[in-house]
Amino acid sequence: MTNAMEHEIFDIVGDILKDYQNGRTIDKIDIFNQPDKEVIIDIIQKLLKILFPGYYRDKFYKSYNANSHLSILIEDVIYHLNKQIAIALKFSSAYEHKTEEGIQEDAGKISLAFFRKIPQIRAYVETDLQAAFEGDPAAQYREEIILSYPGLYAITVNRLAHELFLLGVPLIPRIMTEHAHSRTGIDIHPGATLGKYFCIDHGTGIVIGETTEIGDYVKVYQGVTLGALSTRDVERLRNKKRHPTIEDHVTIYSGASILGGETVIGAGAVIGGNAFITTSIAAGSRVSIKNQELNINMQECKLLQKTDLEQDEMWFYTI
Amino acid sequence: MTNAMEHEIFDIVGDILKDYQNGRTIDKIDIFNQPDKEVIIDIIQKLLKILFPGYYRDKFYKSYNANSHLSILIEDVIYHLNKQIAIALKFSSAYEHKTEEGIQEDAGKISLAFFRKIPQIRAYVETDLQAAFEGDPAAQYREEIILSYPGLYAITVNRLAHELFLLGVPLIPRIMTEHAHSRTGIDIHPGATLGKYFCIDHGTGIVIGETTEIGDYVKVYQGVTLGALSTRDVERLRNKKRHPTIEDHVTIYSGASILGGETVIGAGAVIGGNAFITTSIAAGSRVSIKNQELNINMQECKLLQKTDLEQDEMWFYTI
Amino acid sequence: MTNAMEHEIFDIVGDILKDYQNGRTIDKIDIFNQPDKEVIIDIIQKLLKILFPGYYRDKFYKSYNANSHLSILIEDVIYHLNKQIAIALKFSSAYEHKTEEGIQEDAGKISLAFFRKIPQIRAYVETDLQAAFEGDPAAQYREEIILSYPGLYAITVNRLAHELFLLGVPLIPRIMTEHAHSRTGIDIHPGATLGKYFCIDHGTGIVIGETTEIGDYVKVYQGVTLGALSTRDVERLRNKKRHPTIEDHVTIYSGASILGGETVIGAGAVIGGNAFITTSIAAGSRVSIKNQELNINMQECKLLQKTDLEQDEMWFYTI
Repeated sequence: MTNAMEHEIFDIVGDILKDYQNGRTIDKIDIFNQPDKEVIIDIIQKLLKILFPGYYRDKFYKSYNANSHLSILIEDVIYHLNKQIAIALKFSSAYEHKTEEGIQEDAGKISLAFFRKIPQIRAYVETDLQAAFEGDPAAQYREEIILSYPGLYAITVNRLAHELFLLGVPLIPRIMTEHAHSRTGIDIHPGATLGKYFCIDHGTGIVIGETTEIGDYVKVYQGVTLGALSTRDVERLRNKKRHPTIEDHVTIYSGASILGGETVIGAGAVIGGNAFITTSIAAGSRVSIKNQELNINMQECKLLQKTDLEQDEMWFYTI
Repeated sequence: MTNAMEHEIFDIVGDILKDYQNGRTIDKIDIFNQPDKEVIIDIIQKLLKILFPGYYRDKFYKSYNANSHLSILIEDVIYHLNKQIAIALKFSSAYEHKTEEGIQEDAGKISLAFFRKIPQIRAYVETDLQAAFEGDPAAQYREEIILSYPGLYAITVNRLAHELFLLGVPLIPRIMTEHAHSRTGIDIHPGATLGKYFCIDHGTGIVIGETTEIGDYVKVYQGVTLGALSTRDVERLRNKKRHPTIEDHVTIYSGASILGGETVIGAGAVIGGNAFITTSIAAGSRVSIKNQELNINMQECKLLQKTDLEQDEMWFYTI
Repeated sequence: MTNAMEHEIFDIVGDILKDYQNGRTIDKIDIFNQPDKEVIIDIIQKLLKILFPGYYRDKFYKSYNANSHLSILIEDVIYHLNKQIAIALKFSSAYEHKTEEGIQEDAGKISLAFFRKIPQIRAYVETDLQAAFEGDPAAQYREEIILSYPGLYAITVNRLAHELFLLGVPLIPRIMTEHAHSRTGIDIHPGATLGKYFCIDHGTGIVIGETTEIGDYVKVYQGVTLGALSTRDVERLRNKKRHPTIEDHVTIYSGASILGGETVIGAGAVIGGNAFITTSIAAGSRVSIKNQELNINMQECKLLQKTDLEQDEMWFYTI
């Protein structure tokens, strides 16, 4: 590196450091008072080991006594989650005037309340597993679903995050569900309420909004949006019911959009692929889009039946 | 941490350990008899190094003798894959009454049979690379495709997983393709058969079902589903042809759905964006949806042409 | 392992090593002249720490003096980026006849020019952050957006990659945006130009092509394609404007496709969900698809209102 270049680097570093002095959100340098995303992702992995004790390996503890191993793991997660919750609570306006001691105490209570929910979360996840196995003709083994299905992964992380959301923890629930979104393409807000036997097939592109309520035995395919009808007047919409209610035994096929806080899909309804729904649907209905009109043009046949198709004709097109 | 809290933690740990005694799928703690997902993902990475010896780095072996390095790598993968296959075979009902020795022997045979396919898989992947380069106006270098295109990544992992699927290995092929799904948003079941010169552009949201058959020189865009027409009566559908057949030189534009085991898209056909197809299409056809009717409402113009647009009017909406 | 098996492995290794001698793209073993994807991903993470100094932790440097820590970090990234750029430049035909010294000199100049842009990139990213906060009723804290929103992540990586793209660096910009695509499901080509206050909500499945131009205060939802109208005649299309122009204050709802290099969406227009647009839209228009005709069939109600719904009837269907 030349001397001139070193000088320039020195200047650039100075300019960037100066740029941090602008007082914008992006400039905050208060790292020890931010939840640590990597720690939270590590907590997710360990919670999955606690939920599925036989399926996720632990590289560090090689123990043949599963119980002693698992109790160490549980205590470890409580310890770290507790610390992250204490940091996160300070973001809430409800904690603005609390003492450090009061915050620590509440963080402790929340952590324990969360862990007391673990058996119930496990009971629900077992139903999701059964729903996936019974609902997917490609599923050969239940183990396959635990080890590889993105739907079960996203649902499980949501069930965990949703409990923290209900306990009023800021930031952490969304970091958890966005981690699952990143891994699976399935975007479920931690506020959404999911019933038992919930099944997501394929899943990429699914969006389930904050105030969605989903009953039992519901099945949802890839690309489905359970969304808000409007996002005008954002402030008025915060904390309002703006996403649909899906009753028991509903199936929603791929690409369908169901929008609006007053939209209710009645029990047992089946929503066909790509349907765009903004009003309630009666229980038991089968909804499908009317046959899409297609243009089918055969004039190109001759060209394409040439056996010696040229490479540059190969990427034929339409829109 | 207070004494009271320690006591509560002790109770919680006890409750969770007791919850593992319920005998459900989720309670199985038989970790050494489950395929190890992390090992399988590591095997995928190493297989990619074997397929593309010049493109994926190996941090651990710094060797200028590529051959000696690669032979160590190949032997390492055979060893680990062999172990995982032996574990996975025990899930198959065909192996229920086999001795441990018989299982080990079969795992060895399958591993070797798989590795004998590597040169053929490489020959196919080279055709996929050519198809991506020739089919994408944004592609400047073939190396760019190997180093960054999700389509080639998903196709390559599928070609590897498909061979293990054909050799009757349980669990592992799906873990492999779901890893690729997680990284790329492209969900190809390991059972799907892909022809030469297969090209996926962008890819997010693509679903290609288990019994899909795809010919040579096929190109598929983001959001395309090659799916089943119905998932009623799941048990009857297992192992049945329920996904479409796509013949040579077909192009399928973004968002199209092609459904059903008897649906055949004839050679050279072009399927337009968002088309929803449940019956066969003759060879050479160009299919597009009839012009979508749009409402275009200009009454809002005045508001929006105000130069001093207010921030809270900015997120104007429609559905 | 038996002797016979060892022999077979020896043969297989030999066959694979021989397969590398075929002279195809896939066979290139020139690893030290390829950009290193893992190093580039590490550079992205470090650039994010430089952009958001308070939000991304650094495990290795525990420093209470943020400035000294950050200057070390910046110098480290300049050093590594410089090396990767020098490797990448050799792929460009413009560098075919340059000396090693000339290439190194240009790599240095490009690295510095890139870093000089950091304050401007930060200013733009701050506007994106504001747009996400003001545009999403589910956003409670700005920190939540930095720590977890995939939209901001993809936009930020694109802003970084776009500068390297403008500086003529081959390969690296696309590796960067494809890394973001893999993490977020949002596929923005590094060539795309993004205005200030750009907001992506949910994001999975978004595709924004190479020659797209986007104005200020634009908001885009999941599944939107800003694409090319045709990919016939690939060679003629390379480096041509083939993706749309989106003017200021436009909102594009989920699943809409806007295609073609001559398509301009005028300022303030709102494009409804699933609209398929291949011609220009006047400023201020509200575009929505005409009410989709739905078949709603109630005949199945009786079956589904049975309280003792059988499990195998549960996954009722439609297409």
